[in-house]
Amino acid sequence: MAREVTADAEGGKLRVDAVENRRRIIEASRELFAERGLDAPMKAIAARAGVGMATLYRRFPTRQDLLTEVFAEQFAECAAIVEKAVRETDAWRGLCSVVTGVAAMQAGDQGFSAAFVRTLPDPSAVERKLQSGMRGMRDLIIRAKRAGQLRADFAFADLAILLLANGGVVSQGGEAASAASQRLVAYMLQSFRADGVVQGPLPAPPELRLTDVVFPE
Amino acid sequence: MAREVTADAEGGKLRVDAVENRRRIIEASRELFAERGLDAPMKAIAARAGVGMATLYRRFPTRQDLLTEVFAEQFAECAAIVEKAVRETDAWRGLCSVVTGVAAMQAGDQGFSAAFVRTLPDPSAVERKLQSGMRGMRDLIIRAKRAGQLRADFAFADLAILLLANGGVVSQGGEAASAASQRLVAYMLQSFRADGVVQGPLPAPPELRLTDVVFPE
Repeated sequence: MAREVTADAEGGKLRVDAVENRRRIIEASRELFAERGLDAPMKAIAARAGVGMATLYRRFPTRQDLLTEVFAEQFAECAAIVEKAVRETDAWRGLCSVVTGVAAMQAGDQGFSAAFVRTLPDPSAVERKLQSGMRGMRDLIIRAKRAGQLRADFAFADLAILLLANGGVVSQGGEAASAASQRLVAYMLQSFRADGVVQGPLPAPPELRLTDVVFPE
Repeated sequence: MAREVTADAEGGKLRVDAVENRRRIIEASRELFAERGLDAPMKAIAARAGVGMATLYRRFPTRQDLLTEVFAEQFAECAAIVEKAVRETDAWRGLCSVVTGVAAMQAGDQGFSAAFVRTLPDPSAVERKLQSGMRGMRDLIIRAKRAGQLRADFAFADLAILLLANGGVVSQGGEAASAASQRLVAYMLQSFRADGVVQGPLPAPPELRLTDVVFPE
């Protein structure tokens, strides 16, 4: 009896270790793909994750398996943000949570999702899911306008503008990137308000001097 | 008498041609430095400007002369925008004209000014002038806050954020870049208002689909 409990506990520990290894491999891959591109050496990924090559290959036999998994995680995270937002009773709150959440993901990702997509075995499946997420966003926008929260001249393209703008901030903002991104998003949400009521307080301004931008190192 | 008039007219025409050639050379250089980098071939510059190599070298004996001139033009344009704005009685109007003007220059330049600066014989001279422009901007910001036009929590760093954000839009926005940049700037200025009064109308939204941003070609 005591023996069985021990065996169970042992088995549980193994499973916990396996989950933990898997998490570390995916995190390391995400970092290295971002730093060195999608052909970052498997050896470097194993080293960064702190696992042996045998463990890496047991979990992910090919690079494609790894790419699919890393992207699937990010995509699922993004889809979850949108799905949760669409269910919000307060459409404005839903819109804010999508914009804030996706911009934060972008700050941690720096546009590598797009590169991942092109390496997937079936990118059209991703695109179909994305289309469904966008229908949800469209409904959210219509509801927020009807509620008098979102300005009537807001256009769907404004979400694309925000992604591009945030992309510039996160890719060129250096150490201030994350703080600058949060402040940009707060300002943009302010400007989307139909009533203009000044929202506050803004996230603290980043340590970013104009000369750093005009004369980057 | 008639002969002298003719000679004058002829001389005037030559001077007009020289000015026109110079303008075309600078414009061609600006384009080619942006497209191919600062070592774009002099031959390509002459061809794009529609002048012979002899004319090009007579006006600009070295590549450095050309770089200095191209940058000096852009820099003078930018300095003029700031100087004019600082003299505005209405500080908010001054601030808007700087933000709009500099963002439009950035849309036409795509950040190559920074590269030019590094090639200048004396970049510190440029930096000194820039510092003076920034003192002007600082005064403008203080005045606009005192007048209750600019929100009190506006930070100088927000101008840097706006440049980075606009940089993302103009470099990644493709054919929609210019329209997207104008709309971004209008939104940001809206969000800087202390009173929140909704400004309008916005510039028309660009032809920019979210899928184009998430799945760029």
